[in-house]
Amino acid sequence: MVGKPVLYGFDGSTYVRTVRMVLADKGIEYDQVPVNVLAGEPRQPEHLKRHPFGKVPVLDIDGIRIRETDAICRYLEDIAPKPPLVPDDARARARMNEAIGLIDSYGYGALVGVAGYHLFPDFIGGQNEAARERAITDSQTLLTLLMENRNGAGWLAGDKATLADYFLGPIMFYVALTPDADAVMSVDGVKDWWEAMQAHATFAVTAPDLG
Amino acid sequence: MVGKPVLYGFDGSTYVRTVRMVLADKGIEYDQVPVNVLAGEPRQPEHLKRHPFGKVPVLDIDGIRIRETDAICRYLEDIAPKPPLVPDDARARARMNEAIGLIDSYGYGALVGVAGYHLFPDFIGGQNEAARERAITDSQTLLTLLMENRNGAGWLAGDKATLADYFLGPIMFYVALTPDADAVMSVDGVKDWWEAMQAHATFAVTAPDLG
Repeated sequence: MVGKPVLYGFDGSTYVRTVRMVLADKGIEYDQVPVNVLAGEPRQPEHLKRHPFGKVPVLDIDGIRIRETDAICRYLEDIAPKPPLVPDDARARARMNEAIGLIDSYGYGALVGVAGYHLFPDFIGGQNEAARERAITDSQTLLTLLMENRNGAGWLAGDKATLADYFLGPIMFYVALTPDADAVMSVDGVKDWWEAMQAHATFAVTAPDLG
Repeated sequence: MVGKPVLYGFDGSTYVRTVRMVLADKGIEYDQVPVNVLAGEPRQPEHLKRHPFGKVPVLDIDGIRIRETDAICRYLEDIAPKPPLVPDDARARARMNEAIGLIDSYGYGALVGVAGYHLFPDFIGGQNEAARERAITDSQTLLTLLMENRNGAGWLAGDKATLADYFLGPIMFYVALTPDADAVMSVDGVKDWWEAMQAHATFAVTAPDLG
């Protein structure tokens, strides 16, 4: 690696935490520029130059700038393969990739809809009871499928934590702080998974400081 | 491979076409169940059992069911690595993964917003002039970034077509049919890329029948 990478994004972002977990696992030192999502900082001109759709994380590494969490994590996996965060087995890898796709496309919106209602309503456009109920239902639908696909394994895609768990864990962290945690966590298999996640070393050390 | 895979989704879906291109490249024969997105079929109970969020494509293969285009394509790449649709080089792979993330998160909505306004307005919630203008601007923003990252290479992530091109090509196919094609295609580099895409063998053979 050429020089220290620079991570743009604040610790409160679930996607930034995903990248921070990977960096911690791989033992990669980095500098961080804390772009605060809740304060609208990603939409400032300075950050729009880095990511034209105003999102975090962005990682400058090895002379290139990579946007989007999935691309960043896979690059880190490529340059620092240990410990592996992508399963060896093609089927488990399919489950990991499917879980990431499902979380990105439906899970994030649903779970952040639940968490945001209670914790950061301005970020989700204000408190709306119907939206909250739909978010709970969608969260349960997503988790039911992920747990079925998990099929008794220790983690979402096999017996070791993978990028899929790293996408879900930081979002569940916020859901777990809300009165709706019981409803969301009631899906078969979620409680076991969540206990394993909380006990995961780099999950614990990357918890955002909630003040 | 155990038996013939079954692909759920109709030829009009851009994401289904992405998977069909990969299957064609790899020479994998399959059966197809044409779930029609424009007719709302993915939201019918029969398909919700396959994909609880009512989306296509879904692929049944080797005794497992895989949802989400990215996961399906990567599994096909794993079991049938030739011809390669993922670059060997880690940086090019990062560019491919970044492009897929950007297309999924911002490009699809913007480009389908442009195409849908003219071609399938019901699918995008009706014709709205402000939404159309925003979709054109966002499409240009996305394509500007993708073309900068392309950095003079023949394709989005290097000198061979990759999954990133397979995500973008089927969406651009619809944009190219509209009066807004010139505005979207005016971004530096897009015309060259689009010519290469149209000349690509499995892109040509997977064109949807527009009647």
